[in-house]
Amino acid sequence: MDKVTIKTLSKDLGFSIATISKALRNSHDISAETKQKVQDLAKKLNYIPNPYASSLRRRKSKTIAVVLPEVADSFFAEALNGIESVAQINGYHVLVYLTQESFLKEKEILKNFQSGRVDGILMSISSETTNNFHIQELRNNGIPIVFFDRVCEDVDTAKITTDDFESSYKATQHLIECGCKQIILLSISKSLSISNKRMEGYMAALKNHHILCCDSNIIYCSNDDTNNFELIKKAMQYKDRPDGIISTVEKFTTSIYLACKELNIAIPQDVKVVCFSNMAAASILNPSLTTITQPAFEIGKCATTILCKALEKPNFNLKNESLIIPSSLIVRESTVC
Amino acid sequence: MDKVTIKTLSKDLGFSIATISKALRNSHDISAETKQKVQDLAKKLNYIPNPYASSLRRRKSKTIAVVLPEVADSFFAEALNGIESVAQINGYHVLVYLTQESFLKEKEILKNFQSGRVDGILMSISSETTNNFHIQELRNNGIPIVFFDRVCEDVDTAKITTDDFESSYKATQHLIECGCKQIILLSISKSLSISNKRMEGYMAALKNHHILCCDSNIIYCSNDDTNNFELIKKAMQYKDRPDGIISTVEKFTTSIYLACKELNIAIPQDVKVVCFSNMAAASILNPSLTTITQPAFEIGKCATTILCKALEKPNFNLKNESLIIPSSLIVRESTVC
Repeated sequence: MDKVTIKTLSKDLGFSIATISKALRNSHDISAETKQKVQDLAKKLNYIPNPYASSLRRRKSKTIAVVLPEVADSFFAEALNGIESVAQINGYHVLVYLTQESFLKEKEILKNFQSGRVDGILMSISSETTNNFHIQELRNNGIPIVFFDRVCEDVDTAKITTDDFESSYKATQHLIECGCKQIILLSISKSLSISNKRMEGYMAALKNHHILCCDSNIIYCSNDDTNNFELIKKAMQYKDRPDGIISTVEKFTTSIYLACKELNIAIPQDVKVVCFSNMAAASILNPSLTTITQPAFEIGKCATTILCKALEKPNFNLKNESLIIPSSLIVRESTVC
Repeated sequence: MDKVTIKTLSKDLGFSIATISKALRNSHDISAETKQKVQDLAKKLNYIPNPYASSLRRRKSKTIAVVLPEVADSFFAEALNGIESVAQINGYHVLVYLTQESFLKEKEILKNFQSGRVDGILMSISSETTNNFHIQELRNNGIPIVFFDRVCEDVDTAKITTDDFESSYKATQHLIECGCKQIILLSISKSLSISNKRMEGYMAALKNHHILCCDSNIIYCSNDDTNNFELIKKAMQYKDRPDGIISTVEKFTTSIYLACKELNIAIPQDVKVVCFSNMAAASILNPSLTTITQPAFEIGKCATTILCKALEKPNFNLKNESLIIPSSLIVRESTVC
């Protein structure tokens, strides 16, 4: 007996090859009745799909892209390890793309995915990203996207984050309990949802403790270490000198410590410091650093698990899969009372 | 006039299509005489290769793979930034694969490249890698490989490294000049060429300063932080307690500092410490850390520039392209005399 192919089914049933193919894939374009007929005959004749043809037709590359601002931040390095660990088990290749915090570069990268080079995308947006047209365009092409850490709020898909508001609230409250009254917040972006949530947590804690929050206490840093160092130095010379610093980003830590050293401001005696950081070296800094430590590996793992599910099940609804995994406040010498 | 194709050339010259194709690609399989005939006729008839077919035939994916042990080490994070910067300019996608220091995983990754998924490979081998069959196999398939940092000495291709012997010599000499007499070396592998070169530099400096080198002073650590912490603690309790430590890997820094703290051994008074490290936080550690700082970004850039050249020019000889870019000794408090 000849091998049963889609052509055999098409001839026997009098449907086009496209219809048979769609019916076998359980496509929404095909009526339930037709699907039943096709699937029944396929079963009867013991039709076995050609995996290679199927992969070509569906354009499955078995590759997922990770779009990241950078890997020098230990959060992203750890998250990437979490992503890799799940991707490997599920047989996916991981393509890592760095936007280097550039919105332009992020748009170029996503444009390139239109060709079907990757099956799905894990994404943490750049600090410059202010709209989501480039992301919506990909979504319209049916390429599943899961956000992690830095999400696009307006895009209706799975978002794996930590409790940014609560963590920042906790950090601010901790400083207030240590006696701080003049707390500055170092942020990286006016548009990023996580930056805004961390700012809101900080403001809510101040308000609940009846501390006035002035705009000049929120400082927007950049990618330029020298510039950040100068901004922090300037802030530390305010008339009402800050007695507390919260950094919402790991990489400002070195600039904070060096600026305080240059100005002869002692940590924690003169100013107490908390940073969002996953740095292993936090415990050996001078002084050791109080951190909000994020579940980076877990966030990477969860985001990838959910994306893999969406890739295996065409009807999987990513919209219902958002998750918040809490961070921990780890108190060390930099905030000793 | 009909479009001139490979078929036209094949008919006119009486060679097979495969021969024509190979001759046009200047393949080594074809005699110089035949190549000349084919190329002359192609020129005469104004044969223009079909770029799409050519891309399919040559399996050009415009993708390069970076095979790395990890990204949590700031050397690799910085090198990756250097790689990205050059790949982007040359229109290549970067696929990052992490071996997580596993030889088995490294072999699986390379096996997967046999399918032509990537055009070329930038590679830093795992600490477990003890033979190069998996690499030779890829080379036999004509996929160009450039090593950076952790090279396979026996594979005859471009290797971009730093001056591992000299840097380690310099670090050891610096400790000797600071009065150290009992210097231990923390290594990551008995097989990695860079680990051996760093060990040789250390041994040569000891010898030139008439200091006896005993085997127990070379300590092989692993990927397990807890285990490394115990190994270091044990070494710091030798009868002749070490007064100097050289770590050939960044990630042992935290374990060294924590072990000394637990044992009440003061850095630099009781023991002086130098680490191979690109960590930005080196200057804010307690005490600030003397480092051998590698030109990580430059190494990534150079390796990618050379690989891109090889991908564009089929006759480019990678064997002649090895480069050594020197590291710097940056003296900080951890080795103050």
